[in-house]
Amino acid sequence: MSILAVGSVAFDTIQSPSGKVERELGGSATYFGLAASYFAEVRIVAVVGDDFGPAQEAVFQKHGIDIRGLERAPGKTFFWEGEYGSNPNEAKTKVTELNVFQNFQPKIPAEYRDTEFLFLGNIDPTLQADVRRQMNGARLVGGDTMNYWINGFREPLLQTLKLIDVLLINDTEAKMLARESSLPRAAQKVLAIGPKALVTKHGEYGSTVFFREGAFGIGRHPFRAPTLPLDEVRDPTGAGDSFAGGFMGYLASQGEINREVLKRAMFYGGVMGSFAVEAFGTRRLLSLTREQIDERFEIFRELTHLE
Amino acid sequence: MSILAVGSVAFDTIQSPSGKVERELGGSATYFGLAASYFAEVRIVAVVGDDFGPAQEAVFQKHGIDIRGLERAPGKTFFWEGEYGSNPNEAKTKVTELNVFQNFQPKIPAEYRDTEFLFLGNIDPTLQADVRRQMNGARLVGGDTMNYWINGFREPLLQTLKLIDVLLINDTEAKMLARESSLPRAAQKVLAIGPKALVTKHGEYGSTVFFREGAFGIGRHPFRAPTLPLDEVRDPTGAGDSFAGGFMGYLASQGEINREVLKRAMFYGGVMGSFAVEAFGTRRLLSLTREQIDERFEIFRELTHLE
Repeated sequence: MSILAVGSVAFDTIQSPSGKVERELGGSATYFGLAASYFAEVRIVAVVGDDFGPAQEAVFQKHGIDIRGLERAPGKTFFWEGEYGSNPNEAKTKVTELNVFQNFQPKIPAEYRDTEFLFLGNIDPTLQADVRRQMNGARLVGGDTMNYWINGFREPLLQTLKLIDVLLINDTEAKMLARESSLPRAAQKVLAIGPKALVTKHGEYGSTVFFREGAFGIGRHPFRAPTLPLDEVRDPTGAGDSFAGGFMGYLASQGEINREVLKRAMFYGGVMGSFAVEAFGTRRLLSLTREQIDERFEIFRELTHLE
Repeated sequence: MSILAVGSVAFDTIQSPSGKVERELGGSATYFGLAASYFAEVRIVAVVGDDFGPAQEAVFQKHGIDIRGLERAPGKTFFWEGEYGSNPNEAKTKVTELNVFQNFQPKIPAEYRDTEFLFLGNIDPTLQADVRRQMNGARLVGGDTMNYWINGFREPLLQTLKLIDVLLINDTEAKMLARESSLPRAAQKVLAIGPKALVTKHGEYGSTVFFREGAFGIGRHPFRAPTLPLDEVRDPTGAGDSFAGGFMGYLASQGEINREVLKRAMFYGGVMGSFAVEAFGTRRLLSLTREQIDERFEIFRELTHLE
């Protein structure tokens, strides 16, 4: 089945203790789309400027990603420059130029309307809700958000959360959203707002999915997936979107959504996130094979499973 | 098989957002011993003062813990008072009265010398090394340490680490010991110092064991065990020693040490740690059954295992 991702396409300049790259193709829709492309047909809705050319287009095309929904606007593409220190969970933003992204109003092409799976990347919650309403036949809706929206746009965000099936955020964001310092209690509060499932990401410690009672016809027991203990996290940029791409991509590749499928989706999310951070930008995501992905899936199993 | 634990017995006054208790029986040897007592015969070597009476003795006796090695010294027992805020990983020490513990010189009774498993609780590394030499027939030696020794007593600690098979510490301690910000790299450096295995504990995210190449006749692939996402951590005191007690206790209960046994020991460590923090002091550890322990083991499996 197919997935539609709505989010950003950007150019990123990234520095970390492992090196520096300039104007790499990035953005939430890009990371998500590349990660998901190994599992399902991906369509994206985003906006780019005049500096987005054939070289960038080719990246999406090579992965079979449908970019008919990629809007071209006069001006420059969203640009971000950031630096990571020794803690990969903390990015120091040096430059943010929203450019054409500033006035992004996602328009869903008619030929995308029947897409079964929808991922609402980290954009203004009012726009997320608007997209969700344009896609009211979607079978499963995943979504992301961040501190900026949680703190400054709480009311529209709470409304949007009623329209999302699976919210994928990190621990800090979940606690901030729920105004609660215990993660399991925060999860219960977030689920009471609307989502059927909350995926919280713990950085190098993996991720946990919490379920609302009765959601997906399964019990509410949480499930925890690992990530790989990597000697070197070269570039954490896009780890969350790559996780979401693996998670949603795997769900879209399956006939039904049940507890076992959701558990495996958590593993595939972790797998794609772990690949993403091994190299700068999207580089590692560009050259994978499904075989390599499944090999890492088995390493994750070996890392956590008793005989 | 039997385990000898050398460490502290103490009285603790503990405050957390969940309440307050005064002069609860605590200390590393107490938590370790109680947790391990569900798996194996436990012997302890520690020192107590005049205020340690029949009520405290009865706690050990009820769990079949051999306290012939418990030295009585004139004066008061080690006393600690601490407070936890909303972050259970950070204790604020309000009072530390070492009392009789100040001059503790562990003496191993002759009848303890044949104990197969030895746990060196968090005491002066020079004393740990001294105990280790008195117990040179031990089959497996586990050990703990803390920031205080890592920062202030580095050289004797590095010597002691050569005498320990499994070091059990938390992430921050491992990074500090290795002077390395990446946990997997820190683990490799710690293993190069001496231990065959390093168990690093990640608080609410569980724990990871890293193996030295060839140690225990198994490969060096790490293994990660979870802990339970608890709505409320009432009192984190003793979580690490309870983990160590479950881990070492399970090892001692098995005929051989292989990869599968070590993996299960990680699970049992997490199980005992998760029980410990559910109630103040050692209270939860006092009233368990092996059946409850194995039920929680299965919950841990359910939390992490694919079908």
